[in-house]
Amino acid sequence: MGDKMNIPKEVVLCEVGPRDGLQNEKKLLTVEEKSELINLCTDAGYRVIEVGSFVHPAAVPQMATTDEVFRKIWKREGVEYRALIANRKGVERAKECKCDKVKLNVSASIAHNIANLNCTPEETVKNFRECVDFAMESGIHVSGSISMAFGSPWEHEIPCDDIKRIIESYLEVGVNEISLSDASGMGTPRKVNVVFTDMRKQYPEVQFWGHFHNTRGLGLANMLAAMEAGIDRFDVSFAGCGGCPFVPDATGNVSAEDALNMLEEMDIGTGVNSDKVLEIGRRAVTLIGHGANSYILNAGRNKDLRVEMPVKKKK
Amino acid sequence: MGDKMNIPKEVVLCEVGPRDGLQNEKKLLTVEEKSELINLCTDAGYRVIEVGSFVHPAAVPQMATTDEVFRKIWKREGVEYRALIANRKGVERAKECKCDKVKLNVSASIAHNIANLNCTPEETVKNFRECVDFAMESGIHVSGSISMAFGSPWEHEIPCDDIKRIIESYLEVGVNEISLSDASGMGTPRKVNVVFTDMRKQYPEVQFWGHFHNTRGLGLANMLAAMEAGIDRFDVSFAGCGGCPFVPDATGNVSAEDALNMLEEMDIGTGVNSDKVLEIGRRAVTLIGHGANSYILNAGRNKDLRVEMPVKKKK
Repeated sequence: MGDKMNIPKEVVLCEVGPRDGLQNEKKLLTVEEKSELINLCTDAGYRVIEVGSFVHPAAVPQMATTDEVFRKIWKREGVEYRALIANRKGVERAKECKCDKVKLNVSASIAHNIANLNCTPEETVKNFRECVDFAMESGIHVSGSISMAFGSPWEHEIPCDDIKRIIESYLEVGVNEISLSDASGMGTPRKVNVVFTDMRKQYPEVQFWGHFHNTRGLGLANMLAAMEAGIDRFDVSFAGCGGCPFVPDATGNVSAEDALNMLEEMDIGTGVNSDKVLEIGRRAVTLIGHGANSYILNAGRNKDLRVEMPVKKKK
Repeated sequence: MGDKMNIPKEVVLCEVGPRDGLQNEKKLLTVEEKSELINLCTDAGYRVIEVGSFVHPAAVPQMATTDEVFRKIWKREGVEYRALIANRKGVERAKECKCDKVKLNVSASIAHNIANLNCTPEETVKNFRECVDFAMESGIHVSGSISMAFGSPWEHEIPCDDIKRIIESYLEVGVNEISLSDASGMGTPRKVNVVFTDMRKQYPEVQFWGHFHNTRGLGLANMLAAMEAGIDRFDVSFAGCGGCPFVPDATGNVSAEDALNMLEEMDIGTGVNSDKVLEIGRRAVTLIGHGANSYILNAGRNKDLRVEMPVKKKK
């Protein structure tokens, strides 16, 4: 069709709002409120939903009720309900709640890891082995995430070789679904395209995800650049909720409404109903009590535009 | 470099803030204030600056002082100072002010044109002939713009053939520099890529510009998609000023700060100094008296990020 862009025909979206979106919100949502949002996501057709995290309640107060939320939500057959964990205790809680998949995270920043954990990113991943083994024995799938993959607030540049060492550590412990995350919002389209092209070529056995924030207005452009590198799985967040504790004024995740508008207008299938996604976004805004980082919630989708034909006025 | 993207190495940016950015602002800036902003743009290294418009003062009050502004600004050799016009009177004023180039505009929307002017877009362009002849006789260059090229609030879809008829009308009257504008913010990357790929193939003699608004958060993604179609000339606006009278809540033009951050991080040359562009953005915000539609003015460029190494705290 004269289109020079080589982009997947279908992508899978994961709604990470209940976890990554809400965890930075000061107002604590109730179990009922979070469950309502998650049930709306299930109803909208998401195939993957990040329900919460099983981490220490003192570390992330908003996530303290993840166990209760997991027990309360409606689980549709074929939808994956996943949670973030950091250790074996997290897997135990995931098992109790019949969580489908746990996600581990490591920062691509060596400085960041050494400061927090006194070891390199790949050592951190190797230390996940016990978690991974225990999860797999318990019938829980495991995925891994690498944050700061496209730029670190500490080192700025993250060489591709650093990411490869981390991916290889994940593969060693048995994890082959890996998300590259731009929580710091430092990724730019060329960087994203180069990294994902390189990683997909080197690790065809890995199922990659892209996770972008809109800190510098590049969330959708980065998503586009990742699709052009063949990536077809992306995290999005209702109303663009989220942030990054290390980056002042970091805007949130790519908003679900904006991403879905782009994908629909480009005829890329998601299985997600965008009318329902708009409702979720509006409900999230009501619950968190402040404005959204979502253009579509403000301006509407293209198809929502109804401008009176000026011709009618003049006749 | 493992980069699948085929993107120009250099692009030319036009700062349209003094015209398209300010024309929707309620607060009228003084001649001194506008001249100050334009002089800062010259100093920052822009090669093209849209100074204002020579239209009826009652139609666009903010532009009533364009003649005075033109006489007051510092004109650097090699920089093109252009203005929007709509008729012969506009060319007369442009001539008086020693304006380098005038820009004509037509909407790609047939409904829009018939309502306002009782003729089709291509008839409107053919009616520009007198203006164009007079401008050229006067030594003034002429460019043309086609708004709603990627989607119209009235018809929604604009067929490529409609755009081609307008381009051919522009060529007939002697204009071969043409901007395709997404003032309604309805463009999406695939559409932008398809249209520009088609137009460049069909009209290799035309020098195309891309003009994007960030209404649905797609400004930079659309700019990227246009660059992938070979487009290397783009309008930007300080602090993301601007809007669209026909689209409620339309966010402004692609912000100069955000566009330049993307381009710099992708090693695409512009000749524009981004430190100075940040200063212009901050000054514009002060002058217009409200917040910017600019991520970089809020979050800073990647290179502005200075996060204290956490490792230092722990030692």
